[in-house]
Amino acid sequence: MPDPKPAETKIVTAAILVIGDEILSGRTQDKNMAWLAGRLNDIGVQLREARVVPDIEAEIVAAVNALRAKFDYVFTTGGIGPTHDDITADSIAAAFGVGIDHHPEAMALLTRHYETSGIEFNNARKRMARIPDGASLVNNPVSKAPGFRIENVYVMAGVPTIMQAMFEEIAPELVGGPKVLSRTIGAGLPEGRVAEKLGALQETYPDVSMGSYPYFRQGEVGTNLVLRSIDKTALDAAYDDLAAYLKEEGASVVETT
Amino acid sequence: MPDPKPAETKIVTAAILVIGDEILSGRTQDKNMAWLAGRLNDIGVQLREARVVPDIEAEIVAAVNALRAKFDYVFTTGGIGPTHDDITADSIAAAFGVGIDHHPEAMALLTRHYETSGIEFNNARKRMARIPDGASLVNNPVSKAPGFRIENVYVMAGVPTIMQAMFEEIAPELVGGPKVLSRTIGAGLPEGRVAEKLGALQETYPDVSMGSYPYFRQGEVGTNLVLRSIDKTALDAAYDDLAAYLKEEGASVVETT
Repeated sequence: MPDPKPAETKIVTAAILVIGDEILSGRTQDKNMAWLAGRLNDIGVQLREARVVPDIEAEIVAAVNALRAKFDYVFTTGGIGPTHDDITADSIAAAFGVGIDHHPEAMALLTRHYETSGIEFNNARKRMARIPDGASLVNNPVSKAPGFRIENVYVMAGVPTIMQAMFEEIAPELVGGPKVLSRTIGAGLPEGRVAEKLGALQETYPDVSMGSYPYFRQGEVGTNLVLRSIDKTALDAAYDDLAAYLKEEGASVVETT
Repeated sequence: MPDPKPAETKIVTAAILVIGDEILSGRTQDKNMAWLAGRLNDIGVQLREARVVPDIEAEIVAAVNALRAKFDYVFTTGGIGPTHDDITADSIAAAFGVGIDHHPEAMALLTRHYETSGIEFNNARKRMARIPDGASLVNNPVSKAPGFRIENVYVMAGVPTIMQAMFEEIAPELVGGPKVLSRTIGAGLPEGRVAEKLGALQETYPDVSMGSYPYFRQGEVGTNLVLRSIDKTALDAAYDDLAAYLKEEGASVVETT
């Protein structure tokens, strides 16, 4: 029996799990979430939840298991370096109930890398070759130490440049669904003036998600109205209805990104 | 019988729940998490988890109930404006299993505010006075529409300037524990050279949490080593041990923030 829904309408979802005390202490501002949200959307994957947990195995295990059961893909960032506080690989192995050991392919590529660089491949650096049983490696074109994939969970570095490079290695194998299209109206009206109409429009266009974000710029109060949908026809119709209403109200209407 | 631990050693924990499609779509970069982490630490509250969920009631309810059971305080940001997508108050009421209605005090202060401003206090704006039964108001010195507190959950606006002002209204009533003290060494050595010593030091000083964060600046590879503890004596001893080791290794050692 064929799938009742054609493949192109299946929504594909993801979560990101940011692992690291440095984010929760406020020392480091996470930049991976917003970047990943945008790139995932480009390929038709909708980011539906994000969590930040500390470098504590039980917390990582609980979060990974909750998220991988709920979403099509899970992307983790952080905790795969050579130091004792890098416990992501061990935690993922524990989450999946599998063993972990130095991965032959990872050992080989790091051996080559450190030989070429004339840097000692010491025990701490060998930690970076520890990969859960059954996982496949994710290439790291920046600093070599690989990430890995196990089932629907992709484990990546926390340093944004490295994470981004790893993600581009992964991207071709991700199977996306329909892409969320977005149009934004910058309206020179306070949110409270637009709210009632927006709520009514939301009922008219149930397949268009409508968000309202006030802004305050140089004393000017306005609202960015963000319409999002996988259905371009519905999106454009909702946009036109909303823009026409705002113009009737005498508001400035600018399409922004 | 007296508490076996003196009050000052009780660790006080918190989680933040960021509510909003705009963060998950990548449209808006969250700035509340890092700010709140720092301010909470100032008053002896440790941020232990952060979650970002979309504007979907069931998701908000599940996250609030998980977090409020696990941490001393929960702070939510976002979703308390006048539009249909602002569903935080209703979701919190659902999470606590209580009713929700226009709160007399909130209605009174918004009535005054809009009268003074000569702005119509329409039905959409009245939504901002909907507060779960049993909650107390959190003052909003910026734009008047209040946040609220119910048990250990504080509900705040998503706009950073408003969130920050609301938090400063709340701060005096928060009961903190010991403050986490932090010292950071910027070491001119790659992480893989420091890792083994750091792991050994971590065992010597179990009450000092040691984190290692590589940096790459103008072709220079180095590592920020962050030591954190509520015990100043242990922190300083660990710092001195680590700095002495790094100097022996011939690394540049700079105390940074």
